[in-house]
Amino acid sequence: AANKKLLFLPGDGIGPEVMRQVRRVIDWMDRKRKITFDVSEGLVGGAAIDAHGVPLSDATLAEALAVDAVMLGAVGGPKWDNPTDYTKRPEAGLLALRKELGLFANLRPAVVFDALVDASTLKPDVIRGLDILIVRELTGGVYFGEPRGITDIGNGERRGVNTQVYTTSEIRRVARVAFELARKRGNKLCSMEKANVMESGLLWRQEVTKLHQEEFQDVELSHMYADNGAMQLLKNPKQFDVIVTDNLFGDILSDEAAMMTGSLGMLPSASLGAPDANGNRKALYEPVHGSAPDIAGRDLANPCATLLSFAMCLRYSFNLDEDAKLIERAIQNVLGGGMRTADIMAPGMARCSTTVMGDSILREL
Amino acid sequence: AANKKLLFLPGDGIGPEVMRQVRRVIDWMDRKRKITFDVSEGLVGGAAIDAHGVPLSDATLAEALAVDAVMLGAVGGPKWDNPTDYTKRPEAGLLALRKELGLFANLRPAVVFDALVDASTLKPDVIRGLDILIVRELTGGVYFGEPRGITDIGNGERRGVNTQVYTTSEIRRVARVAFELARKRGNKLCSMEKANVMESGLLWRQEVTKLHQEEFQDVELSHMYADNGAMQLLKNPKQFDVIVTDNLFGDILSDEAAMMTGSLGMLPSASLGAPDANGNRKALYEPVHGSAPDIAGRDLANPCATLLSFAMCLRYSFNLDEDAKLIERAIQNVLGGGMRTADIMAPGMARCSTTVMGDSILREL
Ligand SMILES: CC(C)[C@H](C(=O)O)[C@@H](O)C(=O)O
Ligand SMILES: CC(C)[C@H](C(=O)O)[C@@H](O)C(=O)O
Repeated sequence: AANKKLLFLPGDGIGPEVMRQVRRVIDWMDRKRKITFDVSEGLVGGAAIDAHGVPLSDATLAEALAVDAVMLGAVGGPKWDNPTDYTKRPEAGLLALRKELGLFANLRPAVVFDALVDASTLKPDVIRGLDILIVRELTGGVYFGEPRGITDIGNGERRGVNTQVYTTSEIRRVARVAFELARKRGNKLCSMEKANVMESGLLWRQEVTKLHQEEFQDVELSHMYADNGAMQLLKNPKQFDVIVTDNLFGDILSDEAAMMTGSLGMLPSASLGAPDANGNRKALYEPVHGSAPDIAGRDLANPCATLLSFAMCLRYSFNLDEDAKLIERAIQNVLGGGMRTADIMAPGMARCSTTVMGDSILREL
Repeated sequence: AANKKLLFLPGDGIGPEVMRQVRRVIDWMDRKRKITFDVSEGLVGGAAIDAHGVPLSDATLAEALAVDAVMLGAVGGPKWDNPTDYTKRPEAGLLALRKELGLFANLRPAVVFDALVDASTLKPDVIRGLDILIVRELTGGVYFGEPRGITDIGNGERRGVNTQVYTTSEIRRVARVAFELARKRGNKLCSMEKANVMESGLLWRQEVTKLHQEEFQDVELSHMYADNGAMQLLKNPKQFDVIVTDNLFGDILSDEAAMMTGSLGMLPSASLGAPDANGNRKALYEPVHGSAPDIAGRDLANPCATLLSFAMCLRYSFNLDEDAKLIERAIQNVLGGGMRTADIMAPGMARCSTTVMGDSILREL
């Protein structure tokens, strides 16, 4: 069989330095586990704008479409901020990847690591042991809806328009992923929208309800308005198992949930497409945190979120659950031993660099 | 001069019982402060649907347009849930009031009461002394944008559409309110949108920046993406003074901020229109909490949020700052004395009913 094909897109800011630690784990897998990846590397975001004038070149996109999975670092930074041309933003590269690869299901776990329970601004008993999964729709809604744009409407006035739009099949396919994941976990799904205000949310609620009736009656389904969801996440996050929501609400609510864990530098994500005839799906894996330009290039960043994203990659794209668990356990043990990058540093712990964190995880492996 | 005219719309759930306590304060003002209000009462939400078949009758709307200010309890409840006709929902009554009265600026303070600092799920030092003000745009955006609706698109598929739309003048008028309020407080304004993804957000950012340049350079202005805003609120809420944002982000972020305070039953809100030639503006005041159907009619609800909304009414609609302060101080003293309705009950405190809370506040006054 051909080797497993990976495309590395380190991107901007701390992207390259955290991705370097994934390279080291890949070398370890090659040597010790006899699992070999063909790794190619490309540019995305600001780095691609600097090199090619666009945040995602056609060649890189073609490469992304050809590989088994994409590993992404992070995109964006002040250097490329505030361009008025929407196609020339670092973010446009990431959005194009999501759309062109059809990555409609974005899995964002919000997990509290025992060793980090005090890092949160929430009280320890509220979040200890928290393990929820947010499934965010990623290729639809107001992110891609047409018409969109800014137009002059006379008298010195302008109008800015975006369109929130969802169809039956867009809703069903992401809800299906969420129901299936719930079945493998706590068997509970909560769907969030603003059906009380938006027709697109009402359609969302109706279609999720219908799919539940048709195929997933064994899963416990509830619905919540997204504003109430933002409150309930804070009030009692452990009431949730899997949450499914649209692109924009998912952006906000998953960031809220991530920050609640206090472990932002620890959280991975997976973005998945539809399975093909052989059950293979396009996929992209990236840390939930951003490019953190303020600490970029200083060997300060926490590589764990990216390494855990690689663990998700092993699990979802290559069915290597055992190897995924090895990485996850190695990270837990290193944390348990007191190693901390700056973002999760706490009194009595040992502060370390990106590289030393990588060293420790490799030693543990 | 004619008496001050108030319209009471108690609405559904706990609305009527918390509004009853405002009546008592109005009687006290009449007797002790020689300030008299003409109070009329009407139906809104589910109560209006039951009586008239619509969530806001033309007569009630006309009355709301004629008075100096509207005091609203809460709308909604399971009895009127899931109707497929959008014009027959309790929420439609509230949305119509906002739109027809032109209440574009929604002021939502997120304040932590010293006596309640332990009620939050956040750690006490993160939120002690918190006092931020969210200014939410209330008559535009995806709540009212056209086209909207659900259409059949063939093959058993449907499409749900809503439109996010803002114009220069809509953005400027709400930003102006926020800048002016910031001047009277900590002189800092943070504007939140998704300018990196949505053109309507880009326009928002450009227009807020322009207004700042033109008229409010003395106010410290910053911009934040709304997803980062959801995180920063949790990470370090005290970094904010005034936040201005659109209708939908404001819905989510103000609920997050409200729940963070742990004092949801304590938070008031004001919705204001544009000042007329005499400086008078249409206004509606309501608690941030909802209709809480689970405890309705049982004398359990916390009336403080509604009483504090009335204090805002005295301040913003009638320039009675002194009386507003009397009410605010009375509530603080009652809390300081250990009185607690069920929602804010804590060990060692005295649990009391809605009515007894009202008694105590009146005694204090
Ligand atoms: C960078 C940005 C375009 C992106 C988004 O809004 O989806 C980010 O916030 C995310 O959540 O992945
Ligand atoms: C009841 C509902 C229509 C309303 C809204 O979404 O604006 C509420 O959540 C609010 O925040 O006042």
